[in-house]
Amino acid sequence: MSENLFAKHKATLDGALAAIHSRDYFSPWSENPSPRAYGETAAADGEAAFQAHLNKPFDLDMPGISGRVGGEVSPYGIELNVQYPTVDMDKLLPAMDDARKAWRDQGVEGRTGICLEILDRLNKRSFEIAHAVMHTSGQGFMMAFQAGGPHAQDRALEAVVYGYETMASVPAQATWTKPQGKHDPLVMEKKFTACGRGVGLVIGCSTFPTWNTYPGLFASLVTGNPVLVKAHPAAVLPAAITVQVAQDVLKEQGLPPHIVSLFVDADPSQPETMALAQRPEVKLVDFTGNTAFGDWLEQNCPQALVYTEKAGANTIVIDSTDDFKGMVRNLAFTLSLYSGQMCTTTQDIFVPKDGIETDLGHKSFDEVVEAIATGVSKFLSDPDRAAMVLGAIQSEATAQRIEDSRGLGTVVRDSEKLTHPQFENARVRSPLIMTIDADKEDIWGQELFGPISFIVRTESRDHSIELARDVVKKHGAITMGCYSSDDVQLDKIEEAALDACVALSINLTGGVFVNQSAAFSDFHGTGGNPAANASLADHAFVANRFRFVQSRRHPK
Amino acid sequence: MSENLFAKHKATLDGALAAIHSRDYFSPWSENPSPRAYGETAAADGEAAFQAHLNKPFDLDMPGISGRVGGEVSPYGIELNVQYPTVDMDKLLPAMDDARKAWRDQGVEGRTGICLEILDRLNKRSFEIAHAVMHTSGQGFMMAFQAGGPHAQDRALEAVVYGYETMASVPAQATWTKPQGKHDPLVMEKKFTACGRGVGLVIGCSTFPTWNTYPGLFASLVTGNPVLVKAHPAAVLPAAITVQVAQDVLKEQGLPPHIVSLFVDADPSQPETMALAQRPEVKLVDFTGNTAFGDWLEQNCPQALVYTEKAGANTIVIDSTDDFKGMVRNLAFTLSLYSGQMCTTTQDIFVPKDGIETDLGHKSFDEVVEAIATGVSKFLSDPDRAAMVLGAIQSEATAQRIEDSRGLGTVVRDSEKLTHPQFENARVRSPLIMTIDADKEDIWGQELFGPISFIVRTESRDHSIELARDVVKKHGAITMGCYSSDDVQLDKIEEAALDACVALSINLTGGVFVNQSAAFSDFHGTGGNPAANASLADHAFVANRFRFVQSRRHPK
Repeated sequence: MSENLFAKHKATLDGALAAIHSRDYFSPWSENPSPRAYGETAAADGEAAFQAHLNKPFDLDMPGISGRVGGEVSPYGIELNVQYPTVDMDKLLPAMDDARKAWRDQGVEGRTGICLEILDRLNKRSFEIAHAVMHTSGQGFMMAFQAGGPHAQDRALEAVVYGYETMASVPAQATWTKPQGKHDPLVMEKKFTACGRGVGLVIGCSTFPTWNTYPGLFASLVTGNPVLVKAHPAAVLPAAITVQVAQDVLKEQGLPPHIVSLFVDADPSQPETMALAQRPEVKLVDFTGNTAFGDWLEQNCPQALVYTEKAGANTIVIDSTDDFKGMVRNLAFTLSLYSGQMCTTTQDIFVPKDGIETDLGHKSFDEVVEAIATGVSKFLSDPDRAAMVLGAIQSEATAQRIEDSRGLGTVVRDSEKLTHPQFENARVRSPLIMTIDADKEDIWGQELFGPISFIVRTESRDHSIELARDVVKKHGAITMGCYSSDDVQLDKIEEAALDACVALSINLTGGVFVNQSAAFSDFHGTGGNPAANASLADHAFVANRFRFVQSRRHPK
Repeated sequence: MSENLFAKHKATLDGALAAIHSRDYFSPWSENPSPRAYGETAAADGEAAFQAHLNKPFDLDMPGISGRVGGEVSPYGIELNVQYPTVDMDKLLPAMDDARKAWRDQGVEGRTGICLEILDRLNKRSFEIAHAVMHTSGQGFMMAFQAGGPHAQDRALEAVVYGYETMASVPAQATWTKPQGKHDPLVMEKKFTACGRGVGLVIGCSTFPTWNTYPGLFASLVTGNPVLVKAHPAAVLPAAITVQVAQDVLKEQGLPPHIVSLFVDADPSQPETMALAQRPEVKLVDFTGNTAFGDWLEQNCPQALVYTEKAGANTIVIDSTDDFKGMVRNLAFTLSLYSGQMCTTTQDIFVPKDGIETDLGHKSFDEVVEAIATGVSKFLSDPDRAAMVLGAIQSEATAQRIEDSRGLGTVVRDSEKLTHPQFENARVRSPLIMTIDADKEDIWGQELFGPISFIVRTESRDHSIELARDVVKKHGAITMGCYSSDDVQLDKIEEAALDACVALSINLTGGVFVNQSAAFSDFHGTGGNPAANASLADHAFVANRFRFVQSRRHPK
C-alpha cells in the first residue's frame, strides 16, 4: 500500500479525461513498436517471453484450482501447448464475491490507481502480448502489436476514466444545509460509497483477445467488481498474461489476487459458459461474439446486466467521388486488413447499376467493380505486404466459409490460398469479392464473417441509401461508410445513419479506414442497432456497473 | 422558436448541476405554499383551476383519439368525473415514433431548454397540481403541495440535468488531429449527435402521481425520446395536467405536441399496459408499483430498457440512543406521515429482547414498544394535525389490508377509523403497530403497504443488524434507519447497509425523517437491491436512454 498509484498515474488519467470530452487524438502509449519508445531490447525480450510460455503450465493465483487444460494452435501453424489452470467455480466465485469488500474499500482513487498501474505494466509487455495475440488471433505482427497492445490499452484506459469520472462525480462526503427561515438550518453529514454490483464475467473472442476483452474487464474492475475473464479457448494466452499482470499488482497492494481471475473451458462449445453466466454471483456480463449467443445472454441472465457486441452487416454507399483512385486504394486496404476478420470490416458495398460520377469521369457499375477488385489484387501483389496485412485466418470455420460462399454471387475477385513467407503452415487467404443484385438481401444481409464481401447492384443512388439504412436497422452494423461529392446526397446519408444509429465515415481516401476507430474520440458501436447493445466506451457503459450507497446523520 | 429557452433557464440549470456534484441543498422552487413565493392569488386560483377540471372532458392533442374514459374518486370522498381521451395506439405510437426526428433535431440545448420551460410552468401551477394530487393520492394538502409540486419538480430537474450533463459531455463537433511524425498529421472533423432510443413509456402509481412519474418522464424526454405517460387509473388528473403543460410548450416551439402523450386505461387491471410495454416502438419503460408487475416488465420487454421501483421492507435498527424522546418523536412522525403509504416508510423496527441503553437509562423491550405506540397516539391526538399528516388511505385495498393484518402480530397500537374535519367521507386510518418475534420473517419480511408496522423482538443487538441486512438482500428496501450511541455498532450497521446496498439514516431525532429524501443530494433507492433496479437520479438513470451517433470526414 506504500506507493500512491493514483498520484503516480494522475497525468495519464487527466490526459484521458480531457480527451473523452474534447474527442481529440490521445494516447499515452506509442503505437510504434520502436526501440525508442519501448527500449532497445524490448522486441527481443518480448519474443523470448512469449516463447518461454510455450509447452509449459501457466500459473495463476486462484482458489479452487482443479486441473489443467489448453489446446491453442496458432493460425500460423504452431502448437502453443500452454497448460492453464481449470477452476472449481463453486470455490472461485464465492471467493471472488467475498473479495468485493476489500476491493470496495480501496475507494475510487485506490481502484483507479491500481487499474492504471496494471495498464502501465501491460504496456511494457506489449511485445510479449503482441506475439500471443498474433499466434492466437492470426493477426499480422504489426496489427497484433497495435490492436493487441497500445490500442487495446487505450480502450481499457477509456473505460477506466469513464468509470472514474462517473464515480468521482459524487463526493465521498458532503454536507447538506437546508435553510429554515428564522430557525437554524437543517444540516446533514452524508457519505457516498461507490459499490460494485458483484462479479463481472467477460467473455472474450478469438479475433481480438485483448482489444475486445479490456473494456468490459476494466469497466467492471474500476467500478468495484471482481472480474472473471472467460477467454475464448482458441485465444487464451493474451488473456492469461493480462490476468497474471493484474494479479501481480493486486498482490503487491495486499489484495486478494483472484479479484481478477481466468476461466478456461476445455470444450469450445457453450454449455459451461452458459451456466457461468447464470451464476448468482455474476452480476455483469460483457460479451463479444456471435449474435445467437449474444441474444441468448441478453435474454437469459436476468440476474446480470449484459453488454454485448454481436454480428452485423457493415455497409459502404458509393454515390460519387472526387478521388476515385484514393477511394479504391482506401477500400483495398479496408477489405484486406486482417482478412476481413474485424467486426468493423465492410461486407456490402452499394453501387448504382448505372454507375457513378467521379473525378475521372463517369464510371459504369462494372468499371467500379473492376477497379475495386484490381485494387485489392494490386495491393496484395507484394507477398511480404500481403502477409503482414492479411495475417492468417483465425479458424478453420472461417476458411471453410470462404469456400462455401463462392456460389452466393458472381465472383469478381477470387480468394486464394497464399503461402506465408515465415510460417509455411499458416492459414492465409486473400479476399473473395462478389457482385450481387439488391433483391438478394437474404444473402448479403447476413453477416459472412471473414474476407467475403459483396458489391451490391442497386437501382439508384437513393436506393443505395435506403438499403444501407434498412440492413442496419434489421441486422445491425458497427460501421457505415460512404463516398459522395454531392452535398444533397451526403445529407441524406447522414440522416440515414442517424436514423439507423450507426457510425458513419465519409469520403475516406487517405490514412484513415472505416474499420478503424480511435479510442477517446470514436465510439466503437453505437449500442443502438442490433449489432451491439453497448458502445466502447461512454457513460452508459460504466454508470450502471456500480451503485452509490449513502448514509446520512446530523453533525455531532 | 423565437425565445432561447436554454438561455432563459441557464441559471437554474447551473445551480442544479453544481448541486448534483456538491450534494448540498438546492431547489429553485419554494416548498412553502406562501403568497410571497407564489403570488397573492395563487392559492385561490389553483383551487379554482382544479375545480374547473371536475365533471368535464379534459382535452389533449394526440393523433388517434377514440373516445373518453375516467372514473377517479377522491380518497376524501369526492367523485372527480374528469373524462380523458382514449387513444388508438396503432395511430399514436407510430406518430410519436415519427416525431423523434424533430425532437432529436432540437439538439441537446434545445431539448433541455424546453424541459426547463415545462418545469417552470408546472411550478407556477403547483397549487392546482396539489389539489389534483391530494384528491387522487389521498395525501394531505401540505404534502400534496410539496411532494406533488416543488419536490416532484426538483426530481424532474435532477433527471434533466443528469441527462444534459451526460449528453453535453461529448461536443456536437470536434477535430481529431493525430501526429504522423515527419508527415502531415491525420485530421478528421467529427460530428456527434445524441439520439433517443424510441418511445419512452412511464407507468405511474396512485400514491405519488407526479413525484414518481417525473424522473422517468423527464429523463427520457431530455435525452430525445417522445414519452407516453400511462397514468394510474385512480390518479390521472395530475399526470394529465402535466402532459397538457408539456404539450403547450411543445406547440409554441413548433413541435408536434404528442411528443408527450397520455394513456389512460379504462380497466385498472394490467393486460392493456402489458401489451403497451411490449410494443416495438417502446424502447424505454419506467415503472413504479408492485413487485410482481415490476418483475414481469423487467423480464418480458426485451425490446426496451426497464427502470423499476418496486416494493420492499424498510427497516430501522434500534440499538441504543442518547435522545430517547427525540427518537420516539421522529418515529411517530415517520410512521404517521401519509399513513405509511410511502415507499420509504419503515415497516420493521428491530429491538433486542433485552431492551436498549438510552439517555433516560435502560429501557426494556416493552418500554420501547410502549413509548413508540404512545408517541404515535400523542402525535395524532390533535385531530387537525392528524388529518393533515395522515391524509387519506388511497385505496380500499390498503384499508382492507389494515383490517386483515391485525392477527399477524400482537397489536400494541390499533388502527382507528378517523373522521376528517373537512371531508366527512374521507377514508382516514391511523397506524397499526404490532410486535412480532424475529423468527416470523415470513410475516414481517413481506411488504404490507400502508400504515402497518412491526416492532421485531430480536435476540441481540447484532442479531438486529443481521436481520436488517438479510431482509434487504432478500426482499429489498428503499430506506434503512438506525439509532445507536455506540460507534462500534454504528460501524457494523454501516457495513450492513453497504453490503445490502441500501441508503442509511443514522440517529434522526430532529426535522429530517427516514422516509424523506432530498433531490440533488439523496439518492432515492440504490438500484442495487430487489426494491428497485434504478436510483433517482444518477448517470445510470439517464446515460443509456440515448446513444451517440457520429460521423467523421477529413476537412475540405
